[in-house]
Amino acid sequence: MIKVGILGYGNLGRGVEAAIKKNSDMELAAVYTRRDPASLTIKTEGVPVKSTADLDTGKEDIDVLVICGGSATDLPEMTPKYAAMYNVIDSFDTHARVPEHFANVDAASKAAGKVGVISCGWDPGMFSLSRVYASAVLPDGQDYTFWGKGVSQGHSDAVRRIEGVLDCRQYTVPVPAALDSVRNGENPKLTTRQKHTRECFVVAEEGADLARIENEIKTMPNYFADYDTTVNFISAEEMKANHSGLPHGGSVIYSGTTSQGTKHVIEYSLKLDSNPEFTGSVLIACARAAARLNAEGKSGAMTLFDIAPAYLCRQTGEELRAHLL
Amino acid sequence: MIKVGILGYGNLGRGVEAAIKKNSDMELAAVYTRRDPASLTIKTEGVPVKSTADLDTGKEDIDVLVICGGSATDLPEMTPKYAAMYNVIDSFDTHARVPEHFANVDAASKAAGKVGVISCGWDPGMFSLSRVYASAVLPDGQDYTFWGKGVSQGHSDAVRRIEGVLDCRQYTVPVPAALDSVRNGENPKLTTRQKHTRECFVVAEEGADLARIENEIKTMPNYFADYDTTVNFISAEEMKANHSGLPHGGSVIYSGTTSQGTKHVIEYSLKLDSNPEFTGSVLIACARAAARLNAEGKSGAMTLFDIAPAYLCRQTGEELRAHLL
Repeated sequence: MIKVGILGYGNLGRGVEAAIKKNSDMELAAVYTRRDPASLTIKTEGVPVKSTADLDTGKEDIDVLVICGGSATDLPEMTPKYAAMYNVIDSFDTHARVPEHFANVDAASKAAGKVGVISCGWDPGMFSLSRVYASAVLPDGQDYTFWGKGVSQGHSDAVRRIEGVLDCRQYTVPVPAALDSVRNGENPKLTTRQKHTRECFVVAEEGADLARIENEIKTMPNYFADYDTTVNFISAEEMKANHSGLPHGGSVIYSGTTSQGTKHVIEYSLKLDSNPEFTGSVLIACARAAARLNAEGKSGAMTLFDIAPAYLCRQTGEELRAHLL
Repeated sequence: MIKVGILGYGNLGRGVEAAIKKNSDMELAAVYTRRDPASLTIKTEGVPVKSTADLDTGKEDIDVLVICGGSATDLPEMTPKYAAMYNVIDSFDTHARVPEHFANVDAASKAAGKVGVISCGWDPGMFSLSRVYASAVLPDGQDYTFWGKGVSQGHSDAVRRIEGVLDCRQYTVPVPAALDSVRNGENPKLTTRQKHTRECFVVAEEGADLARIENEIKTMPNYFADYDTTVNFISAEEMKANHSGLPHGGSVIYSGTTSQGTKHVIEYSLKLDSNPEFTGSVLIACARAAARLNAEGKSGAMTLFDIAPAYLCRQTGEELRAHLL
């Protein structure tokens, strides 16, 4: 059994907990929190909730620590810190800071003789794998990534910060015409606006100025100004009834050529009922690989690009070749 | 530069040759043939066509040999034979004989200190990777593979052997209702007939008994009897004009669950203008990995399951993380 610790018990931490239950070779050893452990009740019976102070001793009896924190401030600090003590997994997704984060985790985990797998999830993660395999096979080609239809938590949060907004769920939606053109191998040049639209479902305070809220959303720089955005005001009941899940998904479409006039289109797509449960499932497969690679004497930072797929699987090589090849 | 030898210059050998031209770090060193080398003209200027007798010396100056033979009789003999002399790649696809073939190649290549990558292509190959990644992430799930719409060369050949048939192109076509059900995550039980139909375009001899030919096709055991088959008689001109390519493709669809009522659907699909050129491109990416792994001191048989994706790519780890993560 691979003993897994979870650091952080938000949506993603709970997704990792759900994933562990589906993997017979993994067990949840403990959940670690920065809050008062007594304030937290987890779903897995008989498993302790502990303080990060315990984790900081470096002496916890775990094979892998899955760090479920945010990319903005948590992970850049936490992942290198714990990589110096344990095999670690994270879902770091701030693209511009990957080289720096990778270098920090690499230094810490190499010094400790541990493995640190960063940027696991579906994008970065499974989508990254699709881009890499496609470009390895068809170097003369181009990739496109479409997200959605799904809930963007960052955009939902941004709308919630507007005065008069009680709640919001923001869906990112690919533009069908853009998807069609890419799927047909036309290699179009697409602007931000041509690729995705944004749909907001907003619960406003009673008496709030709806026109002002709609305008503030649609003109918000970075988040909405470059997109065609639709704003729908709904009741709190409707929000709860129809928008309580965190579905997501999308497609990586790669179009390449092997000779004059010979085109190939590769598409990898995901349709996820729960973004955090799927992301947690990818983290857990990576946790298995980290434990195994470390047991073989490997150390240092890695991404999914550096891990042979068999390491992610419970099955033996013989079983994989017999049933999945 | 990675020096590649191609053994066999049929459709697949020419596909590998096309792929090499798209990879700036690879060069075609020689094409080897069992025929008289003087009888063969290849597309790459300045590259020699040699006899397999040269190859048999074990002294050819190549980094990898890509073996483009048939799985029925060629590869079970050729791949272990040349694995004892060179790093080798093949596209062995007789599923039931994979364990035996893997063991034979493993023994030969380990003894020689070489790497042998077997069963490369798209199925087995890229489709196998999709099945493995999906089942690693969602162990509680089920995979479905649909082939087509595309030309099955085996089925086309089977029809050509019928008396009175001059030429045939057989298309395998997935049944839309089955695809829809699987994409909806309904996990249907599907019979062979419910998954695919078969469409034949046949050029018959003048005066041939078309009803007899159609009946012989539709009742042919293993190939057609278990499918709904359509037979269209066409002219030789129409065959040449509309059916001269070897397009193929298909989808691996995996549907899994992470908690009560929470489903996820993963789909990997290919739409290929040329089956042999795409397959050749996968073989060449594997050739790069074999050369690199062997340079690091690795030996023995492998499949794509055993190869970290970064080994398939021209780019460095830094470049991959910067552009494709």
